[in-house]
Amino acid sequence: MAVQVAVCGPAECTERDWDRAHETGRLLAGRGAVLICGGHGGVMAAAAAGARSAGGTVVGVLPAADRSAAGPDLTVVLPTGLGQARNNVIVNAADAVIVVGGSWGTLSELALAMRAGRAPVVQLGGWLVHDEDGRPVAGIVHATDPADALRATGLWD
Amino acid sequence: MAVQVAVCGPAECTERDWDRAHETGRLLAGRGAVLICGGHGGVMAAAAAGARSAGGTVVGVLPAADRSAAGPDLTVVLPTGLGQARNNVIVNAADAVIVVGGSWGTLSELALAMRAGRAPVVQLGGWLVHDEDGRPVAGIVHATDPADALRATGLWD
Amino acid sequence: MAVQVAVCGPAECTERDWDRAHETGRLLAGRGAVLICGGHGGVMAAAAAGARSAGGTVVGVLPAADRSAAGPDLTVVLPTGLGQARNNVIVNAADAVIVVGGSWGTLSELALAMRAGRAPVVQLGGWLVHDEDGRPVAGIVHATDPADALRATGLWD
Amino acid sequence: MAVQVAVCGPAECTERDWDRAHETGRLLAGRGAVLICGGHGGVMAAAAAGARSAGGTVVGVLPAADRSAAGPDLTVVLPTGLGQARNNVIVNAADAVIVVGGSWGTLSELALAMRAGRAPVVQLGGWLVHDEDGRPVAGIVHATDPADALRATGLWD
Repeated sequence: MAVQVAVCGPAECTERDWDRAHETGRLLAGRGAVLICGGHGGVMAAAAAGARSAGGTVVGVLPAADRSAAGPDLTVVLPTGLGQARNNVIVNAADAVIVVGGSWGTLSELALAMRAGRAPVVQLGGWLVHDEDGRPVAGIVHATDPADALRATGLWD
Repeated sequence: MAVQVAVCGPAECTERDWDRAHETGRLLAGRGAVLICGGHGGVMAAAAAGARSAGGTVVGVLPAADRSAAGPDLTVVLPTGLGQARNNVIVNAADAVIVVGGSWGTLSELALAMRAGRAPVVQLGGWLVHDEDGRPVAGIVHATDPADALRATGLWD
Repeated sequence: MAVQVAVCGPAECTERDWDRAHETGRLLAGRGAVLICGGHGGVMAAAAAGARSAGGTVVGVLPAADRSAAGPDLTVVLPTGLGQARNNVIVNAADAVIVVGGSWGTLSELALAMRAGRAPVVQLGGWLVHDEDGRPVAGIVHATDPADALRATGLWD
Repeated sequence: MAVQVAVCGPAECTERDWDRAHETGRLLAGRGAVLICGGHGGVMAAAAAGARSAGGTVVGVLPAADRSAAGPDLTVVLPTGLGQARNNVIVNAADAVIVVGGSWGTLSELALAMRAGRAPVVQLGGWLVHDEDGRPVAGIVHATDPADALRATGLWD
């Protein structure tokens, strides 16, 4: 069974986030990892396009019950019909979660992944979580670029 | 149909969070609101106990498929069998979400509520979400005490 | 914690099914049971109306993510946002499942309840399940009327 | 995007059901279809093994939140953490559903597929659903062998 890595991020993203997600997808496919994503636009579409450009397998886990909103670069489409509860399915499927950029949906995936505690969570930019005293909450690794993000997952040590 | 308010917070909480959650539950029941919570300990149990002390209805939406982990102050128990995907059910059921204290599970509920955008989200303490430039992400109301939290929901204007 | 009983049946039902569901709801409320239902019309609405006529608590577990399709006799509304996956939430919440009438959605609830194997399943009319040799598959109790259905759950022995 | 076909059936199955499921998986892979299954043993494992023997892609949609119960022939593993609510995810993902053999879990998938009404449902043996008058409920196609089942989906007309 191949390694599975989720790339999570906003459906509307900056050009920098798009580039980072695309490169992350491309590198993951090069390592033989299956890419798990939310199947929509923005960071999800960029990671999917990057992975497909390197011949990778891409699974899109959609909130809707049908495939009408599926992006063009998905190998497998799972229209869950679960709405945003599908975010927990994405997280459960991942040996590591790489977060690119910030949005409320993205933050819910990051938080669900940390709550599950099964897979390393790596951020490339995006939102920051502080405790009541203003200190960063521990546990998330911040990477500087896609290659560093793959290293930080520890999956290819 | 009664107003439904979710109180979310960690299963292991500080004494201050317990007191705030208990008082929030008590005040909500006094207004005739149905309390929706995760049905476990800590903030969830405190809010449930507060609501029951005022004769309120308390719904516990559990991650497990059976009732064995249900707290003692629940009027109705929904063992969803969904794991942490049940957090989105809690959020969908709420006319307002009041967050007391911080944890990864709690943050996922806060983020899912903001993502849905249907209900006001009010925090009593807890974790803070900043964008990449270190500024608080807009949209969450921070209240000073339980009475202020109820006011901040806007449900009883 | 009160006993919780699910009444499942089609959203479009016959007059006989309506009467049976209404009487079942009324009797359940008389016993102090919380009624769990799908929250829509037909058998679900009849059971809810019956329970409310006797002062009972009625929980509607909706497929949609909001309350717009909720029936008028629900005490608590859980808009799950799960689509028909919500059928498994209904089943998990029930100490017994009473099925009135037949439809594909209803059959899925009956099958999920039998699959879980935690709660007795009682039918008042409705569809029949046969094995390949044409024999009824064992395990479901067939009742003759609502009072018999309550007896058959074994909850009040 | 490839055609996606679900093969559903019991985790403990007869030798005849195993052979039929294996041949169905093999034929589906030969057509380039992605096989969606529940990822466990019996019919699910047989269909997966058949598809892999022909070089196909196999997606296992598991009830558990982790991969420990995943079968050996899965290309992609989705540990949903949803319990039997995952049956609706399988159904939503399918352009056609082929049912081999009978069990309560299998029947729930058949019923959810008919409830959704989006994809043709084809049975190879298995349980039969009758209305109150003892007549088969319309809508399911009964096939005589795996090749006939593929034809009956209408996906390759």
